[in-house]
Amino acid sequence: MAAVRNLLFIMCDQLRHDYLSCGGHPTLKTPHIDALAARGVLFRNAFCTSAVCGPSRMSFYTGRYARTHGSTWNGVPLPVDELTLGDHLRPLGLRVALAGKTHFVPDIQGMARLGLDPRSPETLLLRTGGFEPFDAYEGHVRPPDDAPYMRYLKTRYPGGDPWTGFVVGAEAPDGTTADGWLIRNAHLPARVAEADSETAYMTDRAIAFIREQADKPWCLHLSYIKPHWPCIAPRPYHDMYTRDHVMPAVKSERERLDPHPVYKAFIDMEVGQSFAREDVREAVIPAYMGLTRQIDDHLGRVLAWLETSGRIKDTMIVFASDHGDYLGDHWMCEKELFHEPSIRVPLIIVDPDPAADVTRGTVRSELVEAIDLVPTFLDAYASKVPRHRLEGRSLMPFLRGPAPTAWRDAVLSELDYAFYEAREFTNRGANDARAFMLRTERWKYVFYKGFPPQLFDLAEDPSELVDLGRTPGHEKVRQEMHGRLLERLTDRRNRITMDDEWVLGARDREMAGGIVIGRW
Amino acid sequence: MAAVRNLLFIMCDQLRHDYLSCGGHPTLKTPHIDALAARGVLFRNAFCTSAVCGPSRMSFYTGRYARTHGSTWNGVPLPVDELTLGDHLRPLGLRVALAGKTHFVPDIQGMARLGLDPRSPETLLLRTGGFEPFDAYEGHVRPPDDAPYMRYLKTRYPGGDPWTGFVVGAEAPDGTTADGWLIRNAHLPARVAEADSETAYMTDRAIAFIREQADKPWCLHLSYIKPHWPCIAPRPYHDMYTRDHVMPAVKSERERLDPHPVYKAFIDMEVGQSFAREDVREAVIPAYMGLTRQIDDHLGRVLAWLETSGRIKDTMIVFASDHGDYLGDHWMCEKELFHEPSIRVPLIIVDPDPAADVTRGTVRSELVEAIDLVPTFLDAYASKVPRHRLEGRSLMPFLRGPAPTAWRDAVLSELDYAFYEAREFTNRGANDARAFMLRTERWKYVFYKGFPPQLFDLAEDPSELVDLGRTPGHEKVRQEMHGRLLERLTDRRNRITMDDEWVLGARDREMAGGIVIGRW
Repeated sequence: MAAVRNLLFIMCDQLRHDYLSCGGHPTLKTPHIDALAARGVLFRNAFCTSAVCGPSRMSFYTGRYARTHGSTWNGVPLPVDELTLGDHLRPLGLRVALAGKTHFVPDIQGMARLGLDPRSPETLLLRTGGFEPFDAYEGHVRPPDDAPYMRYLKTRYPGGDPWTGFVVGAEAPDGTTADGWLIRNAHLPARVAEADSETAYMTDRAIAFIREQADKPWCLHLSYIKPHWPCIAPRPYHDMYTRDHVMPAVKSERERLDPHPVYKAFIDMEVGQSFAREDVREAVIPAYMGLTRQIDDHLGRVLAWLETSGRIKDTMIVFASDHGDYLGDHWMCEKELFHEPSIRVPLIIVDPDPAADVTRGTVRSELVEAIDLVPTFLDAYASKVPRHRLEGRSLMPFLRGPAPTAWRDAVLSELDYAFYEAREFTNRGANDARAFMLRTERWKYVFYKGFPPQLFDLAEDPSELVDLGRTPGHEKVRQEMHGRLLERLTDRRNRITMDDEWVLGARDREMAGGIVIGRW
Repeated sequence: MAAVRNLLFIMCDQLRHDYLSCGGHPTLKTPHIDALAARGVLFRNAFCTSAVCGPSRMSFYTGRYARTHGSTWNGVPLPVDELTLGDHLRPLGLRVALAGKTHFVPDIQGMARLGLDPRSPETLLLRTGGFEPFDAYEGHVRPPDDAPYMRYLKTRYPGGDPWTGFVVGAEAPDGTTADGWLIRNAHLPARVAEADSETAYMTDRAIAFIREQADKPWCLHLSYIKPHWPCIAPRPYHDMYTRDHVMPAVKSERERLDPHPVYKAFIDMEVGQSFAREDVREAVIPAYMGLTRQIDDHLGRVLAWLETSGRIKDTMIVFASDHGDYLGDHWMCEKELFHEPSIRVPLIIVDPDPAADVTRGTVRSELVEAIDLVPTFLDAYASKVPRHRLEGRSLMPFLRGPAPTAWRDAVLSELDYAFYEAREFTNRGANDARAFMLRTERWKYVFYKGFPPQLFDLAEDPSELVDLGRTPGHEKVRQEMHGRLLERLTDRRNRITMDDEWVLGARDREMAGGIVIGRW
């Protein structure tokens, strides 16, 4: 074992924290991810800053909350002056590259105002979220013809559009191609061969990158787009799991009686209506499990290569997901809102340094957040953490001990639901569809602009089936949580252009500049 | 009269709202500013977003609160992706220029990261806050040798440093030069001739600009650095007012009994200690009044030129100050904290359009904020107000009627006191020295991170002498104000890269992109 030299930052898309065997799933087996947990530290109370791909990932990459970095939903460009992982790690001598998805959208307008040409080589990193695009692939929609994966597919499936026809095309029993987006087809196999599927291909590319780097230091973001929609798995993963492996939905009829207006708007959307049906869950969840198992199998290949190449000795490995998935719990599907299946994420960190031997295989229950990763990485490289910008805290003390005696007592997550039908259902404007959640060990409080709050007692009601947001008996708790949320929001790091040391030296500089105020 | 074609945006530095005769001052006469009020609308409840030059001005220029734009104190660079007045108005065909001060500091680090050369002509506007520097002059400290005003001074006062020797140099009775920074010298005349003083020079430059523009449209920010420190006036203004013209300090011994810890830290600073003394007030305030009267006289020259040139018919005139000055009230001097003398600012708007004839000479009592000016200007030019960025509201309805039936019921102001000795007195870190004020018509509530709040009942105690922040009887009011402050803070416009129309069209675009979530 050696000090941290490389960083393998693995992310899944929409993987629930409890859909791993080490996360407690009773029927899904994920031996390779379990092996990571055994080798490192599993954070069982890890949370995303927003249960939507784009804002959550921008928080993972910037170390800042969603409202702070401003990319509050998918497709909202990250302002050009936000720093990402690449900005933080490249100066340390690492090659910082991407294999897979970021959901980053460049701030073309901001670049144009600054006179920056968004097509020039000089602005490449501003277009790619700071990652060298070793193999960028956003998935979800048909990739452009010149995307590497698309070019690869065309060599394997000549003629036509292989992505639509094979990757998200399902093989119907009559031999025709069925639409993999439609959930009634989730039980069918994808027409793509497993070895050509998104997960297999991106794993190949990750291994190619690591091989290419040899002993030169690197950070690779291996970012799978699965098990996110479209929920369609290649053989043999499409029917590896059946309805017998599906856990019952966590929901109660009581939740639909006098529901919170925003919650009601979400369960009224089409996806919520679909997942209220048991047959939908039984069609989709086995495919979701198969896709997760497939990722686990391919991670086994990556780990084997790290062993073979010796890189296991100097590579920090992080495994996470951008958010979870309701999968029918609470009459919801997708994510967005603040119940645990949505905002809690798997998080495992393996630190190769011998100093971390004392914590291998441990499980931490502290409340950690996606924004903690950037400071953790900087700390792993013994680099200064710019606290005027970064809103998270380094997790290194949990890896090398001793664990901190004082830690945050609440996590913050937020939602900009202006982009949903739910905004129309609730009659909000473009800037009013906002929700902020503060969750302590015991309480989960959700503030909705213009609506009453939600409140859940996680001690008495760990399944979050009873909303105490409007019950007379909990006014005091709500007020306390409201006050704490305000305190939290005032803690935003918006003074990004001046570091703390400079701030603390302000008075001396002013005096040195000749300014004398109020002296007789 | 014609429609708005030009914009003359006049700003004073540290001018209290009530140090104008139209603002109610009993002994100070400001006939030309009064004439503006008679010709336009006086907003008697106008507030700055932070009672410190830099953050306040950045709010005037960006239309955004201090914590939002991030330049929370003097010298903190405005992030390079913030848009200022120039960005908003230049596309409308105006020449947007500056005569005087902005307190803008360019984001050199941000520029460097983006590969922008901070010395190139292409980045000029990024270095000047978006204003063409017709005659930039920051004052307060000795200007660089190549500053236009310094060059002018050198022609008038050859040899040595004319700024230190004449502009802030006072003429002692024995003929020697006394230091104009020291308040014991405030009653002495500056050694500079009145016609060469900062206020006179900058007025000349403003008239030169307006003359040069002839009938081409423009926005000129005429930004005086007076009556800000150093408090030293040229003849005849240095002794135009005497101690007999000084209003008694608004303060009470009760304020110093068990004071709020942050308030105590400020009154314990040297400037507060000085202004607790009556002799200090009586030395400084007459000079402050003289400097104000001087500005008024020179504004008379500007107005005369607008009449002569005909520009009065198509020029909107705005008169404001960046913040006030305690001048010994509440045992304080300077500004920073949230009492009315500090956060309330003079604001007059003259709209040349005949549609505004119905409101001329009226006084409005609505709560308006510095961030309202950018939307007002855009509205005056019938240009779209980008509501995803701008946090204020257009004041045009108050100018042309009918006045809005619904208006904001509270103003927000904030302070980042990390830069003061008061931070050390209160043992705060660089990111913890934060205060936020919410003021309604009746209540003023100040939230201090890590401390109890302050609360003033403006109906019962308009002089703000009784802090109700910790009295048992006002818990309900404090909680209500606390809740409203949270609501206000969640209203920040941090999603700056996507306009509202685009947000509202998000669902259609997603569907068009082929993404189908949750359909059977």
